Amino acid sequence: MINVSIIGATGYTGMELVRLLAAHPEVKIQQITSESFAGREIAEIYPHLKDKFKMELKSINIADITSKSELVFTALPHGISMEIVPELINSGLKVIDLSADFRYQSQALYENWYQQHLSPELITEAVYGLPEINQKAISTARLIANPGCYPTASILALYPLIKEGLISPDNLIIDAKSGVSGAGRKPSQQLHFCETAENFKAYKVGEHRHQSEIIEKLVGWSGKEVDLIFTPHLLPVKRGILITCYAILEEERLRFDLIKTYQKFYSQKEFIRIFEDKELELKYVTGSNYCDITVKKVGPKKVVIMAAIDNLIKGSAGQAVQNLNLNQGYPEKMGLELTGRYI
Amino acid sequence: MINVSIIGATGYTGMELVRLLAAHPEVKIQQITSESFAGREIAEIYPHLKDKFKMELKSINIADITSKSELVFTALPHGISMEIVPELINSGLKVIDLSADFRYQSQALYENWYQQHLSPELITEAVYGLPEINQKAISTARLIANPGCYPTASILALYPLIKEGLISPDNLIIDAKSGVSGAGRKPSQQLHFCETAENFKAYKVGEHRHQSEIIEKLVGWSGKEVDLIFTPHLLPVKRGILITCYAILEEERLRFDLIKTYQKFYSQKEFIRIFEDKELELKYVTGSNYCDITVKKVGPKKVVIMAAIDNLIKGSAGQAVQNLNLNQGYPEKMGLELTGRYI
Amino acid sequence: MINVSIIGATGYTGMELVRLLAAHPEVKIQQITSESFAGREIAEIYPHLKDKFKMELKSINIADITSKSELVFTALPHGISMEIVPELINSGLKVIDLSADFRYQSQALYENWYQQHLSPELITEAVYGLPEINQKAISTARLIANPGCYPTASILALYPLIKEGLISPDNLIIDAKSGVSGAGRKPSQQLHFCETAENFKAYKVGEHRHQSEIIEKLVGWSGKEVDLIFTPHLLPVKRGILITCYAILEEERLRFDLIKTYQKFYSQKEFIRIFEDKELELKYVTGSNYCDITVKKVGPKKVVIMAAIDNLIKGSAGQAVQNLNLNQGYPEKMGLELTGRYI
Amino acid sequence: MINVSIIGATGYTGMELVRLLAAHPEVKIQQITSESFAGREIAEIYPHLKDKFKMELKSINIADITSKSELVFTALPHGISMEIVPELINSGLKVIDLSADFRYQSQALYENWYQQHLSPELITEAVYGLPEINQKAISTARLIANPGCYPTASILALYPLIKEGLISPDNLIIDAKSGVSGAGRKPSQQLHFCETAENFKAYKVGEHRHQSEIIEKLVGWSGKEVDLIFTPHLLPVKRGILITCYAILEEERLRFDLIKTYQKFYSQKEFIRIFEDKELELKYVTGSNYCDITVKKVGPKKVVIMAAIDNLIKGSAGQAVQNLNLNQGYPEKMGLELTGRYI
Repeated sequence: MINVSIIGATGYTGMELVRLLAAHPEVKIQQITSESFAGREIAEIYPHLKDKFKMELKSINIADITSKSELVFTALPHGISMEIVPELINSGLKVIDLSADFRYQSQALYENWYQQHLSPELITEAVYGLPEINQKAISTARLIANPGCYPTASILALYPLIKEGLISPDNLIIDAKSGVSGAGRKPSQQLHFCETAENFKAYKVGEHRHQSEIIEKLVGWSGKEVDLIFTPHLLPVKRGILITCYAILEEERLRFDLIKTYQKFYSQKEFIRIFEDKELELKYVTGSNYCDITVKKVGPKKVVIMAAIDNLIKGSAGQAVQNLNLNQGYPEKMGLELTGRYI
Repeated sequence: MINVSIIGATGYTGMELVRLLAAHPEVKIQQITSESFAGREIAEIYPHLKDKFKMELKSINIADITSKSELVFTALPHGISMEIVPELINSGLKVIDLSADFRYQSQALYENWYQQHLSPELITEAVYGLPEINQKAISTARLIANPGCYPTASILALYPLIKEGLISPDNLIIDAKSGVSGAGRKPSQQLHFCETAENFKAYKVGEHRHQSEIIEKLVGWSGKEVDLIFTPHLLPVKRGILITCYAILEEERLRFDLIKTYQKFYSQKEFIRIFEDKELELKYVTGSNYCDITVKKVGPKKVVIMAAIDNLIKGSAGQAVQNLNLNQGYPEKMGLELTGRYI
Repeated sequence: MINVSIIGATGYTGMELVRLLAAHPEVKIQQITSESFAGREIAEIYPHLKDKFKMELKSINIADITSKSELVFTALPHGISMEIVPELINSGLKVIDLSADFRYQSQALYENWYQQHLSPELITEAVYGLPEINQKAISTARLIANPGCYPTASILALYPLIKEGLISPDNLIIDAKSGVSGAGRKPSQQLHFCETAENFKAYKVGEHRHQSEIIEKLVGWSGKEVDLIFTPHLLPVKRGILITCYAILEEERLRFDLIKTYQKFYSQKEFIRIFEDKELELKYVTGSNYCDITVKKVGPKKVVIMAAIDNLIKGSAGQAVQNLNLNQGYPEKMGLELTGRYI
Repeated sequence: MINVSIIGATGYTGMELVRLLAAHPEVKIQQITSESFAGREIAEIYPHLKDKFKMELKSINIADITSKSELVFTALPHGISMEIVPELINSGLKVIDLSADFRYQSQALYENWYQQHLSPELITEAVYGLPEINQKAISTARLIANPGCYPTASILALYPLIKEGLISPDNLIIDAKSGVSGAGRKPSQQLHFCETAENFKAYKVGEHRHQSEIIEKLVGWSGKEVDLIFTPHLLPVKRGILITCYAILEEERLRFDLIKTYQKFYSQKEFIRIFEDKELELKYVTGSNYCDITVKKVGPKKVVIMAAIDNLIKGSAGQAVQNLNLNQGYPEKMGLELTGRYI
């Protein structure tokens, strides 16, 4: 049993963490914070939790959190996390940070895409929390940087074939499509129902921050140069990411070989499902912690690789719980036995 | 040919007015204003207008508008309209106001539901712009108050049977359902795509301002006491209002008689369609200026009356154009020959 | 631990039953049937179940089912259920039937609304499976008729105030709105995405079969004459029912009294949530087995009562599991600790 | 003024043709056919046309159509069109065929992707009706093959840069996303609202028939070998196609040069809008006959080209009207002055 707190519990990521952790058999939530709603019951803000989870939201008080918690989830905007995380770490707590602040190993890269880093001393210590690839480091980390939603799907889809030398790390294309919750809870013009329903668009083409996160990890783990284009699109759905990747085989291979490579690579991984002969749909994964993956040949050396996740679960809160499990030695699936609803 | 300006051209109502007026054969748009986007082309804000309508948005300058326009549409929030309308009227312009500021004949009622009225001298002069019922007054008005969206559907559905004494003006119930654009363009938490898609809710039950507008008009025109409950709901659609009304027949009548009453009442009305034996659907009216109406008997003396409109067209901008036509002596359908798309 | 089978496992209701029962700690699914997909794995048809539940679909074989099961869920169209249920009962199995075939106590009423009844001998034995009201009978029943989705929400909302004599059983109006899954999985023109998305309509006004089911139960349990109008509407959402009911108080009462009446009536009921001062939204209940209820005064003696459920869970499969629990003496919430996702 | 008939008027494409042609000032619709709904008024099937267009649907009678019409639109499934078109042509009528039957210049290619061709003698005569590229041939054609929806967007986006030698015709990727109406009106499991709403998927990856249509046209017009991957996806929207294409520049170029190339290529084209510095959104084009195009550089020699259309208008019925206009010498925009609604 572990005592945890959630800083930033009323964004969509924080809300999802509360839902998952409230049902986790080895977790006791000690405190949840929200600057906007401090003093109110979480179920007032999120009435789906009524009669399921009762707790008053507090304003952040590090001393208070430190005294009650062994591990803290920080679900804050980037830039804010790195102001708070060092204090938590220095107080002896473990931290799973859901922002981008500790995802990069390169301070320069972070600063190029985000802003000046305020806690550079923690950058190299932080462990990138993609459990299927980085499990060992996660198991002993003090500070886990939970991956971005697009990078989760992209790296899980591409890394096995790059690592095994089956696809060229050059000329990769990731055509990514995400539901609206990926943009967070804060209202804005473009997230207005009338602007998004029955609509579809690409955005930040070639300029999205997650591109650099994907590249840093693929390069770091594979030791190869990686060249890719990342194009995000906004789907008129609430949850889910589906990516369609285009890659070139290093040499001709059967689809069967590619599928086998994935199956072998992820053979012990609870949350990866390899589809052998069926195309993916968001409705197969939404509501679950699964990452579904498939690959299809479209030419002697050309392949289309697809992956799908629920951006708020495997792409965020669910993966954070998975990281908690691995870090604490709990079964990897504990608290994550979620089956999606299909409809 | 008439020179018009639109004050507040970038809200959803203003945007729709621009689209309709730009295609109106007897209208020349002279100026469009927006405080938020002054200095920018309208097609930058609303790219569906690219290559269709080119005009720079200006900040409001009454003198400038007055010098160029004969008639002005004010598509502003209530409270703001009444600060501007008097000046326009006093400069000799005609005004079609799309806010709530001049819809009430009773200043007290307005002030009870909205706020202190700043131009009470214009209240009695203002003509309620519901063309199917108030055509004569509209044709000579200086100031036309364009009805609310819910009142448009509600009054058109209920007034004929009340006036003809077929239904009791007591115990009326209007269970109303509206698309999200009725709430305007301004972002807010509850209008966030993720909060609204796949959702449905009632709101302001028994407390919605439009209830008082509906009652004032039904009472004023019928000379009868009216007692009704109005319950608005928010549909996860962009456009459209469908209302389901429950009423008691004064005495037993055939459905045929009720349908005939509507057909007779609206016999010369271009934008009313009476459905004799089919239930209504939003997709039959969205994109058009129609108000569809039907009635069904559900007991010897009980009836369910339904009506459907596009809230941004017949419920707002389209009706404003219809008012312009009647006021200026143009054919009622001019510029409004819109056929919805069904899908 | 109980051995169960599901006949008709690939409709939306059957699919949801499989999902819930597969995670139920006291249930072992022995067989699932589908005439359309016999011989295929359920996860091929419903890939969200991949790696979660593995079982081949069979064609119905009563002898086989009988030999393996103690209790059977029949999720078949009405008319088909009553051909199969007698054989199951006569073989000593318990049955929870999700069709309409055994919901009525009056054969004549059933035959008036549906068709000739083929198993009239079981009609009076069958127990109406609305656990919050009929728990005692459910606990010992051989044959449980799972209620319709609209009746579940309607009866739970109206019965307490009728029973306690607070509202008049006359002049009730239920304005009901349902998501599309309530119409089942079978494709039809009106369920085509393009016909339903961004649309809204009333249907079968005054003619929906569920009206008679609601009336029979309210009359039977309260001993009062009940007169009501039931108007269903089709929402462009996948799941969820929200009903807005209009009723007249027998005498003036505070809202507080009405809320207290509900709270007292449902004091021990795990799946009823009474909202004291907040309007309901579908997103609070979808994905859960809750029925949310609130009431608001809109006149000295007029009230608006609202209720919301997930039509596939509390309105169908979840309620069936709840009935199983009560019938078998398991904790009422077992296997139903579902928290909705909000988004 | 031309007398036209529409064979197959109740599919989504036929419905849209009726709507557009009914408002076309130089067109008189003489007959509309439907095998499913013969004998009924079109406005019964599509009530949005009530009071707008009144005509009874007939069963196909070629002699009758021939006697009344000068030009016929065939909006039939492929395979059926080619049984009927020869008779119409031989009777001296002009035909605009919206099926795939006459789109290919290569009979072998057609037969490889569709079926045996029954009217091979018309294949070479048929003119591919993409007006922005093939205007001259269209102006004198007897038989116009209206392009597929995906090919319309794809060819308009890629052809200018291929023709001008700016991008390599190898290694092209078209990641295409379409609304559901592209799949037609006929109900099927995958088009059920519950299967499609809040969902997203790729389908027929590398196997979609439109890939061959795109390649044949690009090769035929440019005289170059073309190698491309085409990946269609199904969006949870009713209308609209947005494609995201990946291409390699033959040599380094400024974005400005690419934009200029498009502007020059389409300088006289009414329905092409080149976006210089803004990403595209479906809501800018739906409801209109526009094809919006933009291009963005994502590497020294890598570009992302995007295009968006309304699949039922520019991708089908609107383009058919545009072909009619060019063929008959009417102004190209006649009857197509549609402005989308944005929301």
